[in-house]
Amino acid sequence: MSSDPLVIFTPSGKRGHFPKGTPILTAARQLGVDLDSVCGGRGICSKCQITPSYGEFSKHKVTVRDDALSEWNAVEQRYKDKRGLIDGRRLGCQAAVQGDVVIDVPPESQVHKQVVRKRAEARDIVINPTTKLYYVEVQEPDMHDPSGDLERLRNALRDQWELEDVTADLHILQAMQPVLRKGGWKVTVAVHLGDAENAPRIMAIWPGYYEGTVYGLAVDLGSTTIAAHLCDLATGEVIASSGVMNPQIRFGEDLMSRVSYSMMNASGADEMTRAVREGMNGLFSQIATEGGIDKELIVDAVFVCNPVMHHLFLGIDPFELGQAPFALATSDAVRLRAADLGLNIHRSARVYLLPCIAGHVGADAAAVALSEAPDKSDDLVLVVDVGTNAEILLGNKEKVLACSSPTGPAFEGAQISSGQRAAPGAIERVEIDPATKVARFKVIGSDLWSDEEGFDVAIATTGVTGICGSGIIEMVAEMRIHGIVDAPGLIGTAEQTGSPMVFADGRTNSYLVYDGTAQGGPKITVTNRDIREIQMAKAALYSGARLLMDKFGVEKVDRVVLAGAFGAHISTKHAMVLGMIPDAPLDKVTSAGNAAGTGARIALLNREARAEIEQTVRAIHKIETAIEPRFQEHFVNASAIPNAVEPFPILNSIVTLPSETFNTGGGDGGEAGGGRRRRRRG
Amino acid sequence: MSSDPLVIFTPSGKRGHFPKGTPILTAARQLGVDLDSVCGGRGICSKCQITPSYGEFSKHKVTVRDDALSEWNAVEQRYKDKRGLIDGRRLGCQAAVQGDVVIDVPPESQVHKQVVRKRAEARDIVINPTTKLYYVEVQEPDMHDPSGDLERLRNALRDQWELEDVTADLHILQAMQPVLRKGGWKVTVAVHLGDAENAPRIMAIWPGYYEGTVYGLAVDLGSTTIAAHLCDLATGEVIASSGVMNPQIRFGEDLMSRVSYSMMNASGADEMTRAVREGMNGLFSQIATEGGIDKELIVDAVFVCNPVMHHLFLGIDPFELGQAPFALATSDAVRLRAADLGLNIHRSARVYLLPCIAGHVGADAAAVALSEAPDKSDDLVLVVDVGTNAEILLGNKEKVLACSSPTGPAFEGAQISSGQRAAPGAIERVEIDPATKVARFKVIGSDLWSDEEGFDVAIATTGVTGICGSGIIEMVAEMRIHGIVDAPGLIGTAEQTGSPMVFADGRTNSYLVYDGTAQGGPKITVTNRDIREIQMAKAALYSGARLLMDKFGVEKVDRVVLAGAFGAHISTKHAMVLGMIPDAPLDKVTSAGNAAGTGARIALLNREARAEIEQTVRAIHKIETAIEPRFQEHFVNASAIPNAVEPFPILNSIVTLPSETFNTGGGDGGEAGGGRRRRRRG
Repeated sequence: MSSDPLVIFTPSGKRGHFPKGTPILTAARQLGVDLDSVCGGRGICSKCQITPSYGEFSKHKVTVRDDALSEWNAVEQRYKDKRGLIDGRRLGCQAAVQGDVVIDVPPESQVHKQVVRKRAEARDIVINPTTKLYYVEVQEPDMHDPSGDLERLRNALRDQWELEDVTADLHILQAMQPVLRKGGWKVTVAVHLGDAENAPRIMAIWPGYYEGTVYGLAVDLGSTTIAAHLCDLATGEVIASSGVMNPQIRFGEDLMSRVSYSMMNASGADEMTRAVREGMNGLFSQIATEGGIDKELIVDAVFVCNPVMHHLFLGIDPFELGQAPFALATSDAVRLRAADLGLNIHRSARVYLLPCIAGHVGADAAAVALSEAPDKSDDLVLVVDVGTNAEILLGNKEKVLACSSPTGPAFEGAQISSGQRAAPGAIERVEIDPATKVARFKVIGSDLWSDEEGFDVAIATTGVTGICGSGIIEMVAEMRIHGIVDAPGLIGTAEQTGSPMVFADGRTNSYLVYDGTAQGGPKITVTNRDIREIQMAKAALYSGARLLMDKFGVEKVDRVVLAGAFGAHISTKHAMVLGMIPDAPLDKVTSAGNAAGTGARIALLNREARAEIEQTVRAIHKIETAIEPRFQEHFVNASAIPNAVEPFPILNSIVTLPSETFNTGGGDGGEAGGGRRRRRRG
Repeated sequence: MSSDPLVIFTPSGKRGHFPKGTPILTAARQLGVDLDSVCGGRGICSKCQITPSYGEFSKHKVTVRDDALSEWNAVEQRYKDKRGLIDGRRLGCQAAVQGDVVIDVPPESQVHKQVVRKRAEARDIVINPTTKLYYVEVQEPDMHDPSGDLERLRNALRDQWELEDVTADLHILQAMQPVLRKGGWKVTVAVHLGDAENAPRIMAIWPGYYEGTVYGLAVDLGSTTIAAHLCDLATGEVIASSGVMNPQIRFGEDLMSRVSYSMMNASGADEMTRAVREGMNGLFSQIATEGGIDKELIVDAVFVCNPVMHHLFLGIDPFELGQAPFALATSDAVRLRAADLGLNIHRSARVYLLPCIAGHVGADAAAVALSEAPDKSDDLVLVVDVGTNAEILLGNKEKVLACSSPTGPAFEGAQISSGQRAAPGAIERVEIDPATKVARFKVIGSDLWSDEEGFDVAIATTGVTGICGSGIIEMVAEMRIHGIVDAPGLIGTAEQTGSPMVFADGRTNSYLVYDGTAQGGPKITVTNRDIREIQMAKAALYSGARLLMDKFGVEKVDRVVLAGAFGAHISTKHAMVLGMIPDAPLDKVTSAGNAAGTGARIALLNREARAEIEQTVRAIHKIETAIEPRFQEHFVNASAIPNAVEPFPILNSIVTLPSETFNTGGGDGGEAGGGRRRRRRG
């Protein structure tokens, strides 16, 4: 056995013997213990703080004496006096081994810190950004051995940080010489660590030790809104989050109307490209202001978006995406400089767009895959990102399938007679009284049911303005549960249904939810046409999922993850009653929130995740619903509520749905399963 | 022995047996025979033309029958009918092996064609450019297996050309989809093959087979002039050559005055950067017009220049180059996009600056090293690029040393009382009659000596206007040979020298070369101050060379190469009389012309030469003359004509120089060896 002292690191449990006088940082590096340092062990950055433990450790069979570490030296003492150190902490680069010792590395001293995600099934994010800060001491120029300042800086990065073949952007070459001299040949540099297309590059340089940090943006570029998270690249912390409307909306509400605009107007695509980039720049200025940082410190940006937004953002005419075979210009990840896209952040900032899965399954779906990792799941998981197109992933460790399905905007409250976006005043929760067949509801902005005392006061400022997406789902499901709508989707008469709220409305019937006309407000109803819209949307969603199940060769899934803002507010039971999603135990249906945004954040904070998702996307089997004959069959069956043929045994064990039908032969009762024109919608 | 037919390629001599029906192109590829093809064997490009030989080949022990190759097929016949083929030629991709055959690959069918250089000692240039054209047939999009158009194009490059991991510039992504469809999924792409910092990239794309070529620029960015060669990157042919004055001249004639300008004026460096880039763009437009090509087809550009021009071109303040330790911002090769420098050529065009050797030995010297390859020389070669700074290389296969020495502008006719740039009317050749001690001369623009009949008529339009650099060297050397100037550099009196042309001129004497005053022209004289200027310049040159010889540990060199325009016009014997260059056999002193420009052309046409010169430059030992004590000693000795201490035995075997000295104790005869202020000059 070695007579050198034993050093044990926690929580890693790594251990080894080191000669007396070995700095803890050195011991950690030799053992591969994850202990951070920006200044390279010079007692400047304090990133390598550790907590020694003293006393008896029976578990480790070691006793740590009070003098197990060296006395405080001048550097460490100066740091503590000037900046302060938490009691019990030492600087790992200054404190040296004197005897057996147990060293705890606190989370904030780890390079590969983890950002913990709240959901049990979600993996934590390991911080490993593309761009990191390095403090170096550079050799001064020597006439006897002439070399460029950059070459000596590169040598310092190689010798002090094991970074090989680092090069520099032109503006660094232009700015570097005075900075090196101002810092007395000590500088901090931000290095982009390189990728499949580019060598590592110095992106920024500061004289001496730079106390600050650098930032990145995770951007979810949606058809309607652009949302961004501003993150500290060293800690992973979200400094600010913000969103703006996508200015392209003035060219068309949904994606296909934007594709049409570009086809009808010679400069249409260019205008939309300009608009979205301008909107982006506005957002970036706003988020930097909110985060209280200089926009020039944003050195990296990751974007997720659907294929049409992807192309318009890059300045590629989306023409081909508007027609079969829906050929993307590029499906792989795209790496660019922010300046190439006219984005005003750091002048060398890099841009990364996640790969697209197929012509209708974009980088947003790839981001969902990165966040929800179906390819790493032991059980079979169905991931549905509910938007105006639904992107659907089904898979497990074995394989992953993907498709998209044109749900249309009904789930966002559009094309519904009383529909609206989720906003204060919108009905979001509904219950129909089994006896009276009258609906009560909650609106966004109040926790009271509409039949509870104080409701009128609570909603006085907002009023009751319409029904949002999650509200309409509950509404239709409740109508189905309580026999107001039948399985084929027909609203019965007041007589047939026993509901005083049903009234004849032209050739069909409608259901009155709320009459606000006395207060100058709207009359909120559900028409049979609204039911049809919801049937189309949910049938599209279900039949996409069912098609993937066919291809996978399964009749059921183990769990369902609902991604997207909509998924976060949906009532699982009501969604199941509608037959939106396959039959599954209710507790196995969870919401992932904005999984696309989370995927963007993961790709921003961990560069290995980029390689990983590129690999995953290549391996995903893409299914094009438009050319699958069974899709139409599933769609027709799924138009019924919940489904014309699928048994839904778990659902049936929870609720019993009435079996009456109201179709008396005529009317439009047969329309639901019919050949309504389907098209891709944004 | 194989029963398959034998195929023998000439001139390579490579041979192998191939089954009947094997296309010659396939056989060539399998044997590693250098046979070109852009279309990949589809009978479109005709780059693979070969000449079969028939009959008895005793050398190869083979008989080639008339039916050794397959009959002309439809593709080959159509090509011949439409485009024509030289008699005896076949398309290598269509003609197939039927029996034993001898195939000659003509030089123009080789990928790695060689551009032959005229000088015996110069290596030929092997064509291997950074950017090449490839014709590919791309798989059409398939909804069952969705992938981006770029990915299928990449796959085609991989499968049809073995090009891996090719990516594309953004503008290609933007333009590619319609081009692929216009070409019916057949396109020609220009691919930059990548380098140390960048993955291979598609730079341009054309529908179908593109008949044209792409171009590159080799640019010699001098302090006074910018000269460029426009080259066809496929053949190496120089399409046009052109030059403009460097517009920076308005900020200062020489380099140091430009460095001063940047130090005195806050925006000085920026102004000069803008000026040189504007000048460059003007030159590029001009050269494209001269070459009759579209400037957008220029996809690559290589630049050589001295360190100050290098920094100003890149937009780096040259401040540090104006003072010890003369630290370059970067000494390695610089790779950029032309757009980064505001150069208006192809939007994706790449820029390559050769590495700098040291703070005063720039990329131009590196280019000279690439052209003259002292590192590959068996004998010890001294390479001198004579400009306002002389860059000096000394070496052989074993090692190479480099330094620069501040010769000043005297060799360009500046700072000489009757000096001028080389232009019609300038005296360029001089002989002094041994008996009369009167000079006769030739001027640029006439082949007659000034004492020959018809001279006055011949020079009537130009006149005799002054003495250019090579003229002043001959003048001073002749004066030394004929006893008008002594070894320390003093002009004797008319009495001492026996020359009627010498006249007292203040405290010293001057020599009358030509009196044109009667014709309203100038009086052309050589003053003692002119002698001093030449002494300083040639001493700087010699002492740099001598210092390198010290460092190398040699007393003589095997050969001397004079680079630069000046070197091309210099009289070897007179240069040796002056003691400009070390003693060497006259036939071992040769001119390399514009070797820096040639080096730029090599780096443009052969990408491997870039890696090679980067390697060479790293291995070169740099000597900083300013801090070498022996440099001063050599300089003092070299101020004498030819030298105060060096024996010059070869020179002495050719001419006997008078040993008289004219110094009578007073005067300024001692000045030559004195401490005149020396500084770096451009």
